Amino acid sequence: MRVSDVGEFGLIDRLSKLLPRSQQDLLVGVGDDVAVLRSPEGRHLLLTSDAQVEGVHFLKERTSAEEIGRKLVAVNVSDIASKGGQPRHLLVSLVLPPEIEVGWVEGLYTGIRRDAELYGLDVAGGNVASSPDRLVVDAFLMGDVAPEFLVQRSGARPGDIVCMTGCLGDAAAGLLLLVNTGLEVARDHAEVVRAALVTPTARLREGQVIAAERGATAMMDISDGLLSDLGHLSRASSVGARLWADLLPISDAARAVARLSGRDPVEWALSGGEDYELLFSAPPDRAAAVAKSVRNATGTPVTVVGEVRPTEEGVVVVREGAEFSLSAEGWDHFRR
Amino acid sequence: MRVSDVGEFGLIDRLSKLLPRSQQDLLVGVGDDVAVLRSPEGRHLLLTSDAQVEGVHFLKERTSAEEIGRKLVAVNVSDIASKGGQPRHLLVSLVLPPEIEVGWVEGLYTGIRRDAELYGLDVAGGNVASSPDRLVVDAFLMGDVAPEFLVQRSGARPGDIVCMTGCLGDAAAGLLLLVNTGLEVARDHAEVVRAALVTPTARLREGQVIAAERGATAMMDISDGLLSDLGHLSRASSVGARLWADLLPISDAARAVARLSGRDPVEWALSGGEDYELLFSAPPDRAAAVAKSVRNATGTPVTVVGEVRPTEEGVVVVREGAEFSLSAEGWDHFRR
Repeated sequence: MRVSDVGEFGLIDRLSKLLPRSQQDLLVGVGDDVAVLRSPEGRHLLLTSDAQVEGVHFLKERTSAEEIGRKLVAVNVSDIASKGGQPRHLLVSLVLPPEIEVGWVEGLYTGIRRDAELYGLDVAGGNVASSPDRLVVDAFLMGDVAPEFLVQRSGARPGDIVCMTGCLGDAAAGLLLLVNTGLEVARDHAEVVRAALVTPTARLREGQVIAAERGATAMMDISDGLLSDLGHLSRASSVGARLWADLLPISDAARAVARLSGRDPVEWALSGGEDYELLFSAPPDRAAAVAKSVRNATGTPVTVVGEVRPTEEGVVVVREGAEFSLSAEGWDHFRR
Repeated sequence: MRVSDVGEFGLIDRLSKLLPRSQQDLLVGVGDDVAVLRSPEGRHLLLTSDAQVEGVHFLKERTSAEEIGRKLVAVNVSDIASKGGQPRHLLVSLVLPPEIEVGWVEGLYTGIRRDAELYGLDVAGGNVASSPDRLVVDAFLMGDVAPEFLVQRSGARPGDIVCMTGCLGDAAAGLLLLVNTGLEVARDHAEVVRAALVTPTARLREGQVIAAERGATAMMDISDGLLSDLGHLSRASSVGARLWADLLPISDAARAVARLSGRDPVEWALSGGEDYELLFSAPPDRAAAVAKSVRNATGTPVTVVGEVRPTEEGVVVVREGAEFSLSAEGWDHFRR
């Protein structure tokens, strides 16, 4: 049996069974993108890790080193943001072919520094190892959060509504343009979707505002695709959910690229992946206040995209009046 | 200019110049294997990272998955040990080809669990990414240390003596046997040197005892090779050093493999790499007490291997009466 047969999440399930029960100070462990450690005094510690692999997450000939460095920071910050936390210290673990240009690695660090400053964290160290061929840039990020502001994945309750920041599908549109360079897209649209893919913005301030409002019952970032990540949130909370596909926020740019390439923008929004928006649930009487605070503090729109339902209903997508009951599978890194 | 032209440490020097001055709570940052963070209350936090790359650090057909998992933990623990600290939480970042067997990854985790229990840390989470081909197992380890016990690299002073735990050269002998399988070595010797290479032991308790004795002025682990790492320690402390090559502790097993293969065991001891012993400096009137405490608490021998000298003398190796003034280069991961 190969990893491609069980998929990423099947693999993680199996591996977590091999580990001993967690220590007492580990509030959240294997299976979440962020480990949460209870600290004896003050703030909880948040630990996360995310790698960018050449040929999988980036193409060296289509993306600059600086962009890859910026994205490495942003995708890790997005995980800390999803817990309402503040990123603090980054370790960068490089696996480099010896013949790589020093200037390329310096460009990578220029990008890392740029986004590190943007999000208020420092680069504390890391490691350099050599690779015979493939380039991997891996990072580990430590952050923290006040215990009363921590939002976990597991608190969604039937009756809550499901909200998200920003919009979906831009990164998927950007990926299509990166590969299919012949497509004639308006320049401003091309720039929007390319930037969403290669230099995503972590919704850090938004996550902190959502957490500080104390209205959200569960939160995570949308990295694998909305449907897949709503599936994770639903399982962690032991609930079902209904997603209203016709309400999904999709940018004009993504719609334009979809139209020109004959793709379905709603499909991108549901399972394109790499959106790095925040998905959260909140009771109806709190959601509007949370959304307003986010808009006021950051300018980022918040959209209602669904509702939390009892677990036996599963995750259902409602589109143009029809209901689709789906096993939540978005971007699973291994399945064929 | 390529990374192979400047080497690992030349690259790290360049990258550190691209980063802003460290934040106030960062006591030790880029350039050390371990970042040290001042914590407002209580213990300092220690952060480190070390990757194992297929074809560079292990050969999948010569080393079991469990051994690779054990080594991944041990090499990271060795860094925490070098600061006198206690490892706490590990994140495992896997970069896996989809066609890899699930059983192999489960074996890796079995090894990770085994050494995690040995050193008293937990696996808090991590990340799984896919790779088109090459397998990389990366890890991030967080630990802590009481501020009064922290031993840095920078405190060695002329007049101190240089000591180390355990012995050198076994891993280099083990690597020779792993590649040159035809060599007829006594079975117990072969087992000793193979184990040193594929399942090294981090000197965790030893590091803690050295730190608690408050006698060491500087400490680090010997991972790149004694000469290279003594060079790092000397530069960090702005001192020189004399190393007495004839006193280096080399096991009977390593000597036997060297004899059979026509190699120089002292060369292995100086720059073989992957020894994972602790190297430390201490004033002469404190060194004997530290050594005795380590032996009593752990059974591990401590050997005097040199002395700290003024910086203008550089790092000198004394062997059979002759002096060699060397630029400290041990196992540099990139230089041709």
